[in-house]
Amino acid sequence: MNRFVLVSLCAILSMQLTSVSAQGPDQPNFVIIFADDLGYGDLGCYGNPTIRTPNLDRMAAEGMRFTQFYSASSVCTPSRAALLTGRLPIRNGMCSDKRRVLFPNSGGGIPASEVTLAESLQEEGYATGCFGKWHLGHLPQFLPTNNGFDTYFGIPYSNDMDRLNDAAPKGRGAFLEPKIEYWNVPIIQDLEVVERPADQTTITRRYTEHAVDFIKKNKEQPFFVYLPHSLPHIPLFRGKEFENHSARGLYGDVIEEIDWSVGQVLKTLQDEGLAENTCVFFTSDNGPWLIFNEHGGTAGLLKDGKGCTWEGGMREPGIAWWPGKIPAGQVSLELASTMDLYTTCITLAGGKIPDDRIVDGLDISPVLFGEGKSPRETIYYYRGTELMAVRHREWKAHYYTQGAYGADARKRENHDVPLLYNLHHDPSERFNLNKKHPEVLAKIEKLVKTHREQLKAPASQLEIPL
Amino acid sequence: MNRFVLVSLCAILSMQLTSVSAQGPDQPNFVIIFADDLGYGDLGCYGNPTIRTPNLDRMAAEGMRFTQFYSASSVCTPSRAALLTGRLPIRNGMCSDKRRVLFPNSGGGIPASEVTLAESLQEEGYATGCFGKWHLGHLPQFLPTNNGFDTYFGIPYSNDMDRLNDAAPKGRGAFLEPKIEYWNVPIIQDLEVVERPADQTTITRRYTEHAVDFIKKNKEQPFFVYLPHSLPHIPLFRGKEFENHSARGLYGDVIEEIDWSVGQVLKTLQDEGLAENTCVFFTSDNGPWLIFNEHGGTAGLLKDGKGCTWEGGMREPGIAWWPGKIPAGQVSLELASTMDLYTTCITLAGGKIPDDRIVDGLDISPVLFGEGKSPRETIYYYRGTELMAVRHREWKAHYYTQGAYGADARKRENHDVPLLYNLHHDPSERFNLNKKHPEVLAKIEKLVKTHREQLKAPASQLEIPL
Repeated sequence: MNRFVLVSLCAILSMQLTSVSAQGPDQPNFVIIFADDLGYGDLGCYGNPTIRTPNLDRMAAEGMRFTQFYSASSVCTPSRAALLTGRLPIRNGMCSDKRRVLFPNSGGGIPASEVTLAESLQEEGYATGCFGKWHLGHLPQFLPTNNGFDTYFGIPYSNDMDRLNDAAPKGRGAFLEPKIEYWNVPIIQDLEVVERPADQTTITRRYTEHAVDFIKKNKEQPFFVYLPHSLPHIPLFRGKEFENHSARGLYGDVIEEIDWSVGQVLKTLQDEGLAENTCVFFTSDNGPWLIFNEHGGTAGLLKDGKGCTWEGGMREPGIAWWPGKIPAGQVSLELASTMDLYTTCITLAGGKIPDDRIVDGLDISPVLFGEGKSPRETIYYYRGTELMAVRHREWKAHYYTQGAYGADARKRENHDVPLLYNLHHDPSERFNLNKKHPEVLAKIEKLVKTHREQLKAPASQLEIPL
Repeated sequence: MNRFVLVSLCAILSMQLTSVSAQGPDQPNFVIIFADDLGYGDLGCYGNPTIRTPNLDRMAAEGMRFTQFYSASSVCTPSRAALLTGRLPIRNGMCSDKRRVLFPNSGGGIPASEVTLAESLQEEGYATGCFGKWHLGHLPQFLPTNNGFDTYFGIPYSNDMDRLNDAAPKGRGAFLEPKIEYWNVPIIQDLEVVERPADQTTITRRYTEHAVDFIKKNKEQPFFVYLPHSLPHIPLFRGKEFENHSARGLYGDVIEEIDWSVGQVLKTLQDEGLAENTCVFFTSDNGPWLIFNEHGGTAGLLKDGKGCTWEGGMREPGIAWWPGKIPAGQVSLELASTMDLYTTCITLAGGKIPDDRIVDGLDISPVLFGEGKSPRETIYYYRGTELMAVRHREWKAHYYTQGAYGADARKRENHDVPLLYNLHHDPSERFNLNKKHPEVLAKIEKLVKTHREQLKAPASQLEIPL
């Protein structure tokens, strides 16, 4: 063997070795697309009559569509904290009874002691990028690049915060006829403000372009893309190409642009030959914001929306796509939660779930691969620090019920005998069966007792002033 | 050419000619599958979380799913009369303000002067079969075989009529824990009662078997199969194979058996090589019967159900399937009605629409074939003989609103300024815009004026005693 052949051979071997270790079948890529305030009934494949979502419908047809998939809270900050830590917000201080989410005048954020999904995957050699709305603290120590992400581009909190009271009309008018200049929300690149106010008409497109670029740049190593769109949170904005795109009006335009974004991500994965090694999951942080008339979405047949613990507040579309791994065209009735994405992704990446704390996420890969049932049997519905309701299998017991927003939110009912619904038979929570099934209530009461005994709730991050 | 060759050649030619004339591309077969009280939100592909409908979902994926498809009435008899005559029930006496449907003690039925879809197709050389619930009169002159069908197997009216008060518990108990022996509904074969009481646990299977046999027997000529299932009308029954089949409970079992039935029909058409020449349409007569708790279905995000003129009462799933003719995987937002099936089928069969009367049905084949928009722009919502609401394009004006059943049904509101909803933006009819759009109300008022001027309402068939 001459020297040239030997060198060539070594080069080829080393390329292959690099390729195997960096992008081996044991380390799939992950893309989590997280909409903001999108309801259970807002997609074509979940029954919406006038919003067209061909890309999400195709994602469902080629993958798995969950019908009983939950976010961990009915509002933004706690829901996002749970997704990225695999833990109920009550365990990490990311909820409060006084302020439901973080605001521009908040001084708190995601505690350093939490191990985020991005940190775990970074540890396993993943490239990690976050493109979109963060809302886990806007001070530098709380931002994505200090919490496991290599890079970040997006807004630090909701798109209706930093309202400019001189520029915007008073009351709801600013929301119902929105203009960019009514708000002063910044766009942050890594740790720097690069634009203020954010041009929200181009924001969905720009998040998408950043995500696509990141995938292309990092295709030789495993990667995690977190793409938390800041829409359809109100105020609604969409790009020029999506003006009057939807029969549903402005709200539909916004959803159809997000659907386009999903199509771009899937196309990139397919064009780059990455589809068979990438798990994509689409869901939303909480239900639709119903108080804003046609600017809010719909939870379909589910009761109520964002801000409350009826099903419409926390049950979400959930679509998983991974050609060749997730069987095509499946509708799954299995119970699952955003927190399960944490545990499932880390497990599939070969990482370790933190064992010095309670992690609520469970590994749902048997469901995804069509190999078994979900390990999840229980959903805890918190409002702030209060456990309002508990679902165990098909049964949901409401200890308290309370309206979502405005005057309704002050109407709180305490149910000495909890309301009880069979969500399989009665998804709209219409028929209380608590007199008929005391044994179910007893079983749920036991679960609650154990849950409370194990619970250590730290001080709230949401109440810390700037 | 010797005599043998000549005879053989003639035989072959004549077979081909027969085959072309009997089953030519100009005369497609039609199968209309009509469920009873199935709601807009009751199928998987319309967003139901716990009812599995893989066959209907496949039918939609291979065909066209309508999101704005309407029955012509919110109750049974008038809805069926409209489907089979292409005319609003107000035009043919098949509605009334005193009795909303026909009963076993009714003496009326479908007038002989009406030209049914079956009669028109029979005229064009079609074999015609009806397998299921009729409900257009149970006296001989009103039965299917005297109104255009070659053969009939099914029940003459609803499955909750002919209640045996000695056998059944009083009140709602009979409906909520149904047994076959509580009702004395007959099964009629052509004109003869062949079974009484009908064994409703096997009824969906038997309708299906009759339809499948009919297709196989008539495959050499054009055929029309009308398969109006008598379920999921309450009381609910299903076959042994479907007991505990569905996570949704008894109601889900019933829908999943109907889904199985659809699968059998499609499979038969494919096995017999008839799929490319057969148009199959699935829909329902009216919305879900909500007063019977978990025994009733759901209209999803639409308001209310059976018996009223809110959207849940009359908007229905509508799925069209015709491989090679109807493009696959389409979701159509076009407006259409069961009455349009009448006109479309007769037109495609080469028949003539009666021109001595007003026919409300329109030819929607351009929509089906992906070639154009729907000619339909208006939906009239009648309750009995009263025009309650009118939809024009995306706008719906309510002149009167009234609850569906029970005490609610006695609460009627007259709207001097009609309520106005944009159904594209607001499918759940939540945001009245009548103050904002007087010009739309004026336009609709004009349509109503013309409609009323052209209207000749004959005496009601539903009020004729036995």
